[in-house]
Amino acid sequence: MISFCQFGAGRIGAIHAANIARHPGARLRTVVDVDVVAAAKLAERHGAAVGEAAAALADPAIHAVVIASSTDTHATLIEAAARAGKAVFCEKPIDLDRGRVEACLAVVKQAGVPLMVGFNRRFDPNFAKLHEQLRAGRIGKLEMVAITSRDPAPPPLAYVKVSGGLFRDMMIHDLDMARWLLGEEPVEVYAAASCLVDPAIGQVGDVDSAAVTLKTASGALCQIANSRRASYGYDQRIEVLGAAGMLQAGNQLKSTLVVAGADGVIGEKPQPFFLERYAEAYRRELDNFISAVTAKTAPATTGTDGLRALMLADACVESVKTGRAVRLSQ
Amino acid sequence: MISFCQFGAGRIGAIHAANIARHPGARLRTVVDVDVVAAAKLAERHGAAVGEAAAALADPAIHAVVIASSTDTHATLIEAAARAGKAVFCEKPIDLDRGRVEACLAVVKQAGVPLMVGFNRRFDPNFAKLHEQLRAGRIGKLEMVAITSRDPAPPPLAYVKVSGGLFRDMMIHDLDMARWLLGEEPVEVYAAASCLVDPAIGQVGDVDSAAVTLKTASGALCQIANSRRASYGYDQRIEVLGAAGMLQAGNQLKSTLVVAGADGVIGEKPQPFFLERYAEAYRRELDNFISAVTAKTAPATTGTDGLRALMLADACVESVKTGRAVRLSQ
Amino acid sequence: MISFCQFGAGRIGAIHAANIARHPGARLRTVVDVDVVAAAKLAERHGAAVGEAAAALADPAIHAVVIASSTDTHATLIEAAARAGKAVFCEKPIDLDRGRVEACLAVVKQAGVPLMVGFNRRFDPNFAKLHEQLRAGRIGKLEMVAITSRDPAPPPLAYVKVSGGLFRDMMIHDLDMARWLLGEEPVEVYAAASCLVDPAIGQVGDVDSAAVTLKTASGALCQIANSRRASYGYDQRIEVLGAAGMLQAGNQLKSTLVVAGADGVIGEKPQPFFLERYAEAYRRELDNFISAVTAKTAPATTGTDGLRALMLADACVESVKTGRAVRLSQ
Amino acid sequence: MISFCQFGAGRIGAIHAANIARHPGARLRTVVDVDVVAAAKLAERHGAAVGEAAAALADPAIHAVVIASSTDTHATLIEAAARAGKAVFCEKPIDLDRGRVEACLAVVKQAGVPLMVGFNRRFDPNFAKLHEQLRAGRIGKLEMVAITSRDPAPPPLAYVKVSGGLFRDMMIHDLDMARWLLGEEPVEVYAAASCLVDPAIGQVGDVDSAAVTLKTASGALCQIANSRRASYGYDQRIEVLGAAGMLQAGNQLKSTLVVAGADGVIGEKPQPFFLERYAEAYRRELDNFISAVTAKTAPATTGTDGLRALMLADACVESVKTGRAVRLSQ
Repeated sequence: MISFCQFGAGRIGAIHAANIARHPGARLRTVVDVDVVAAAKLAERHGAAVGEAAAALADPAIHAVVIASSTDTHATLIEAAARAGKAVFCEKPIDLDRGRVEACLAVVKQAGVPLMVGFNRRFDPNFAKLHEQLRAGRIGKLEMVAITSRDPAPPPLAYVKVSGGLFRDMMIHDLDMARWLLGEEPVEVYAAASCLVDPAIGQVGDVDSAAVTLKTASGALCQIANSRRASYGYDQRIEVLGAAGMLQAGNQLKSTLVVAGADGVIGEKPQPFFLERYAEAYRRELDNFISAVTAKTAPATTGTDGLRALMLADACVESVKTGRAVRLSQ
Repeated sequence: MISFCQFGAGRIGAIHAANIARHPGARLRTVVDVDVVAAAKLAERHGAAVGEAAAALADPAIHAVVIASSTDTHATLIEAAARAGKAVFCEKPIDLDRGRVEACLAVVKQAGVPLMVGFNRRFDPNFAKLHEQLRAGRIGKLEMVAITSRDPAPPPLAYVKVSGGLFRDMMIHDLDMARWLLGEEPVEVYAAASCLVDPAIGQVGDVDSAAVTLKTASGALCQIANSRRASYGYDQRIEVLGAAGMLQAGNQLKSTLVVAGADGVIGEKPQPFFLERYAEAYRRELDNFISAVTAKTAPATTGTDGLRALMLADACVESVKTGRAVRLSQ
Repeated sequence: MISFCQFGAGRIGAIHAANIARHPGARLRTVVDVDVVAAAKLAERHGAAVGEAAAALADPAIHAVVIASSTDTHATLIEAAARAGKAVFCEKPIDLDRGRVEACLAVVKQAGVPLMVGFNRRFDPNFAKLHEQLRAGRIGKLEMVAITSRDPAPPPLAYVKVSGGLFRDMMIHDLDMARWLLGEEPVEVYAAASCLVDPAIGQVGDVDSAAVTLKTASGALCQIANSRRASYGYDQRIEVLGAAGMLQAGNQLKSTLVVAGADGVIGEKPQPFFLERYAEAYRRELDNFISAVTAKTAPATTGTDGLRALMLADACVESVKTGRAVRLSQ
Repeated sequence: MISFCQFGAGRIGAIHAANIARHPGARLRTVVDVDVVAAAKLAERHGAAVGEAAAALADPAIHAVVIASSTDTHATLIEAAARAGKAVFCEKPIDLDRGRVEACLAVVKQAGVPLMVGFNRRFDPNFAKLHEQLRAGRIGKLEMVAITSRDPAPPPLAYVKVSGGLFRDMMIHDLDMARWLLGEEPVEVYAAASCLVDPAIGQVGDVDSAAVTLKTASGALCQIANSRRASYGYDQRIEVLGAAGMLQAGNQLKSTLVVAGADGVIGEKPQPFFLERYAEAYRRELDNFISAVTAKTAPATTGTDGLRALMLADACVESVKTGRAVRLSQ
């Protein structure tokens, strides 16, 4: 039985807390949040106590932590938890600054604790099935990947300002998917971007629409399309072309209902956003972490995955500035 | 907080027990089964105790019962629980004999307790959405209904012998769906049936393939197709034609993966059987029962629904024998 | 080079005339219609002459006739053409009266000319592909068939009155499809029908909605659903269940366009009616006739097919009246 | 009635010849090809004569020419036909060299004859419907375009060598689609490319897989994916994201047949290649040209479209070499 302390009692924290609580091999012991009312509410729902960071990390009854607090606290909490010998699950990103991430990973390495970074999409049943079939050779050698990833609507401007920008905040998920699917590191990154959805996003220095091209050492190509707006719901699709065929994983619709009438044949929209679309993915993700901690094996995603995805996002930012493909060492 | 005693610790019993256990407004207190090992295992999983029927029904701490034991025990248990003042959720059917069902319902009526019969498909999110849109007038006045309902493979012959036959065991679900969708009682029932899947089923006097036609007083028509075998999975679809359009609710596929290759464009099969396809329906069904008991309102499906569906199944059996449509009073 | 005389210059006549004209092995020589203006227009379009029935049938340069005039002229024209030694293609039905059909077929038999009856749907590429896969054993032994066939809107009342009724006018196509798919003759026919679309149709003694069940000697079952109205277009679908799988052939949509927006994911409607949906089927049908006449082989559909479909339609009418399944000899 | 001389009696020439022949407002008078046997065969099929270029262009009875000969003859034939006062339809490309194209267009301009360049995909009913809905404002302001375009298999190496390379030979169609959809000129072009399908293609200096990004002055983004191989057929899809929704136009499948069985739910593959997929597009394309010539209006695609698409292809080639986005003036 793995006992958890969770940092962060917000929207994503509530998901992780519930997934800990429902797991037969885990329990939620402590919830920590600067918003003590939120912390108390979440703790009560799952029979946990509200705690304070230092005490929780000093508590030998706690084996693992989930970090779902604000981004600027991640690296410091990871380091503190690692030094306290706790297994660490941290929401992406570790930090928005590559140097800070590298320093943090060095601490984790020295502490010898497992660190899992929350790239939830790898655990989506649709994408996981695609990945499994791809690795099983169903379409032969991989040649081209296309990732379409659109949020239903932009986040609040206050969030945009501290988010690190579209590439480090949103596309980082797709960059991780690309690495996972390609099975090798991209060596060239090109990005084009625009502010098409809301001029206010551009005024704070960010973009809301982006088209990225990745190329690996073996010549495999990957195209990623991001938009902060899709009027029809959360659009999350993957397509992989191989020598012997194509794999596609599409959106999960709200139901299978179809209405045929004078206006056409109308199907349901995709699930509205990540809470619905990735509910099962979040469950499987935490299951993976709990299994890894229990069995003392490596979790499916690591600190290196977090660092590599950030390096790709940084390269995208640079490419937008320079208008040229950025070369990355493998 | 509604405390439950559950009768039956088999496959369907395990589903209901888990759904009680996960519900914030309910808890599983006692599990009763002639197989005491199964009872103990299920009880332990959800922090309940193994009990004995009479004692459990006499226990004032128990407010409600779930009856998921074998069919021949249903009516007796319903009556005993009703007399003990418990709210009753019973898996379909109440009994295979109409007279026995009517006697049982009379006891329930006198006891004044709520009785819900487990027609789980009404709670399937896809069918529920279709029903909601139908009642909301999305396709105007209903004209024709088509229900396709195929099991992946026949049940064991031992089960077939005591099942009451395809119409009372399997199609009864579709007959309930038909009533629910039509919104009025069928007044004419015609059934044609064959033994096409396995001659052994015919040798014990049953059929495995059936085509039924229902007609209501207003002239609405409903066609139902049943087969005990579908090599591609559990096939559960509904189509409704109205004056202004058509509604369809289809199968839930195992994932959204599509593989395009030399052999075609291959999508996933439907969910394999009812445990997977109707997992969410079973949750919502029990939520409905718990809500109804808590709020002292009527549950969504009643003993009368159980009786009416059985009467339609009986009419099907008669129609197969006589080769003519059976007329039913409304 | 097969030279044709065509009877009937209406909507369906125009289709056949164009298909004759475009065929490298055929040419349209004469057009006959009581509406001489329509005849002249159609003749001119394809470089043919307007003619008169007796003279055309006496013309040795004419090898074959297409009969696309009104139903009440079919049998007489077939007989006259057969006696004149012409190969005959006739739109369904031969006649609405079974005795008249039998008399007509006797004349054709004696004359020894080929007679093809226009069951165009067998030549639809989608249905033909399904039939080919079915016969090739793709789903093993056939068990159940479902045919959905809905017109976009009822025909004019004047036509309804002389049409022979829904079963002989509209469902006859589906009854032929059923025979073709089943691969054996139905021995039991049950029909339920209503007037749901337009009360005026009921007032002239017809129905507009029907549900039919067929059963063959081997026990295979077939359900057919007909409606005179489908607000979303011409709805023509087939589904066949076999021991090893299911085959479905669906509607052809107006285009592959999909619009995703706030109201859902909207696909195109099916083709509006038979002229569009079955354009390719009409071409292939006439190709089959021309090939058969050229090669002196039997065409794909015969007078017997026309008779058998009519007998099934007659059985439907009787079943609606009696409320019981009608037995047919094989 | 427009009389045509056609240059080129090969695969694509046969399509155009048949479309001229079937058009009520046109006829094929002369066929010119260095392969006189092919010319004679095609001429005979459509009641035309075999001719010689100079004589045909001097023939006042010829109003228009279709140029479907080898690429290296296009510009010279266009010029000769233009000087002879003929309306010109020419298969893409005008020439593989931009300077040669510009010189040719200058001659056409001076001659004052209409010139249509064969970008057949604009006439595909699916893409045309998408374009129509896009321009009608169905999804609001256009933001991002994705074009997927994959051949079923690479062309012969002999063709690859003289083709001008993937960008000028294959992607030029997609670049034209992009311009047409975007409704404004791209100002930035980035291309990444690899040889993944067949090393022999790389050995002759070409690529077989490419990912291109276009950006317009308004910031709209377009991604194009090309591959010379798709084991499942000719893959031709378009997706457009706008402020208020998304439009998609997909592949036309060989039929609507679906086979459900133990291996999944198997749909048909897309049409095998352009002859099948774009048969209707070729018809509509020539109809557009004939209508334009008849009505003395401009055809839907012009020499400028040919030039602009070539300039984009040239920019792709340069971008692959330099690893940076190429800027184009509008």
